[in-house]
Amino acid sequence: MKTQVVIVGAGPSGLLLGQLLQAAGISNIILERQSPDYVLGRIRAGILESGTVELLREAGVSQRMDSEGLVHEGVEFLFDGQRIPVALKALSGKAVMVYGQTEVTRDLMAAREQEGGASFYGVSQVELHSLKSDRPRVTFEQAGERYSIECDYVAGCDGFHGVSRQAIPKTVLREYERAYSFGWLGLLADTPPLHHELIYAHHSRGFVLCSQRSLTRSRYYLQVPLSEKVEQWSDARFWDELEQRLPAQLTAGLQTGPSLEKSIAPLRSFVAEPMQYGRLFLVGDAAHIVPPTGAKGLNLAASDVNYLWRILSKVYHEGRTDLLERYSELALRRVWKGERFSWFMTGLLHEFSGQSGFERRIQQAEREYYLTSRAGLTTIAENYVGLPYEEVR
Amino acid sequence: MKTQVVIVGAGPSGLLLGQLLQAAGISNIILERQSPDYVLGRIRAGILESGTVELLREAGVSQRMDSEGLVHEGVEFLFDGQRIPVALKALSGKAVMVYGQTEVTRDLMAAREQEGGASFYGVSQVELHSLKSDRPRVTFEQAGERYSIECDYVAGCDGFHGVSRQAIPKTVLREYERAYSFGWLGLLADTPPLHHELIYAHHSRGFVLCSQRSLTRSRYYLQVPLSEKVEQWSDARFWDELEQRLPAQLTAGLQTGPSLEKSIAPLRSFVAEPMQYGRLFLVGDAAHIVPPTGAKGLNLAASDVNYLWRILSKVYHEGRTDLLERYSELALRRVWKGERFSWFMTGLLHEFSGQSGFERRIQQAEREYYLTSRAGLTTIAENYVGLPYEEVR
Repeated sequence: MKTQVVIVGAGPSGLLLGQLLQAAGISNIILERQSPDYVLGRIRAGILESGTVELLREAGVSQRMDSEGLVHEGVEFLFDGQRIPVALKALSGKAVMVYGQTEVTRDLMAAREQEGGASFYGVSQVELHSLKSDRPRVTFEQAGERYSIECDYVAGCDGFHGVSRQAIPKTVLREYERAYSFGWLGLLADTPPLHHELIYAHHSRGFVLCSQRSLTRSRYYLQVPLSEKVEQWSDARFWDELEQRLPAQLTAGLQTGPSLEKSIAPLRSFVAEPMQYGRLFLVGDAAHIVPPTGAKGLNLAASDVNYLWRILSKVYHEGRTDLLERYSELALRRVWKGERFSWFMTGLLHEFSGQSGFERRIQQAEREYYLTSRAGLTTIAENYVGLPYEEVR
Repeated sequence: MKTQVVIVGAGPSGLLLGQLLQAAGISNIILERQSPDYVLGRIRAGILESGTVELLREAGVSQRMDSEGLVHEGVEFLFDGQRIPVALKALSGKAVMVYGQTEVTRDLMAAREQEGGASFYGVSQVELHSLKSDRPRVTFEQAGERYSIECDYVAGCDGFHGVSRQAIPKTVLREYERAYSFGWLGLLADTPPLHHELIYAHHSRGFVLCSQRSLTRSRYYLQVPLSEKVEQWSDARFWDELEQRLPAQLTAGLQTGPSLEKSIAPLRSFVAEPMQYGRLFLVGDAAHIVPPTGAKGLNLAASDVNYLWRILSKVYHEGRTDLLERYSELALRRVWKGERFSWFMTGLLHEFSGQSGFERRIQQAEREYYLTSRAGLTTIAENYVGLPYEEVR
């Protein structure tokens, strides 16, 4: 087989890249280890930056998002009993869209199927060859058959544990990492959200996020030590702990219900540099992970897709092969700002064991400064809705 | 002897408090261990926040400052070879005043002498008694004589190593501290400043500050390991190192000259809480120390003076003794914001040994974010010129 771009991974970044390349007349094949249902079963983030929304519109897959997604022009912070509304739109000029990553993936899969884009699900033994040559090749197996695809470029959209990053020699790759000593225990329920906006709350028992996927589906998160097991958390215990970390005034309106999903996710900051190796380009989680505070994971993947798609369009349509060498630098500049914001928000709102008294007071002073100064709030707002993409030219 | 307020320490905060109390008709006596000349010989900061400037005007000691001080409406940052002007006035509505702490002290001493304010210099054995009673007492020796002053209140303006903080029982006091592994090597010279504004520069060899005291007197600082001794730094070595850390475009205009003063100061963050114990009130360095990055030391002392003076005025003129209990909380709220800013600026601009790769990249991303975003720059500007004082009522 031959194609112009092989995309490894059919998560939202691989599918979005495929859709945008398709629209630009660039042939591509998507490979995915799992089945479509498995991919759709992964519960992930639900907040889209305005740039991500624009990109989905450009890709022609925004119809359902635009009718069912909820535009949020603000978020709320809560600490020391104070509720602090952050007017995202008023401060930054932009809003965010509440629309689950699962829904984005579903829309992208439907669009690809409709347009007859080539995809192989349930593949194994994926190997990337000759990445430094003019003619890379990707081999894999599906249902006992061996396949080989010749291509111009490979997009590694296969996440943190995927093969793409591992195809880059250790001598070339530099990895930056920070692990946190706690995780997020998440619960999804078909109950109306506690509040019409998201609430990010600091409490001495730990951080809380009151999020949502729609007007009838809530998503709550509790900071828990990494030693906790999800089996130790009955729904009743979860709701009880949530109430303990929120003011009574708020929880008076809380509607509880059975969990549709419950899981503990560790928090990690990770970046691999560079994001290019020969004709392989890493996209999204394959190159970087953020803690979920600030909802940057999917949005940074979309940011990478934005740059890679625009570059490949100019390569095929304008012969601008010089731009290929600029992908890593462009993508990473925005990735590091997203890493910084996620790290900042995580540090601002969580309880840290082993903090010195000085560090604890500084953390408190940061909350008091950033959430009472208009300039401080604007830094939060403009990062939350997403910093602008640089132009590719 | 009797007086209303005993002020321990004749540095700028003690003198300023004395002057403001004097103007409000509140009698006070200042005690100082050193001689006036010794106090004037200490080379300290030179940047006054707009609130500090206002306070000096209110105290009636602004005449020379207003004619000789330099109003700076901006500062400059420099990193990775980029020069980034920060328009303080345009971003925050306020400016700062370049006027040496030594000059402030000189003006305050002259004003006190002119008005015949009681001061004892060269005292020893200062002891504070009965602070929890209605009638505290301060005893001391001067030239072999023993003295005792009965008073209503004691203001501890005697710095980090003074007796005032030590008069508070260890069981009452909580101390918060962070030490840094480097110091600032400072050099004062009668040469015209390198640039009309201050320059805060990050360089891989260490931080540099190009400051000034007047149009003809420069003050430069270099980050150095704490293990360095000032004797190891000839003037020639200092100027050479300065040139290595600044771009050639800038140093082309550098005028070097013999040092008037050269010293190494360690960097430390320190806060003691509470700032009140019975009828003793801690002011300035007696309660808190900041690293000099951001020029907050003298300004936070002035902030404390602002609150204490206003409270004491209301106590004596309106019988508002209820306000006395609020001093610590009011002062500390602003102190912690100053500590946060000094910590933030120190973290942003210095080289840290033992940093992980991730921390180094986050530091770089912070510089790139804060110094390219208007909101980020505004947070720096509004803190640099000084956050507003809260009203005392």
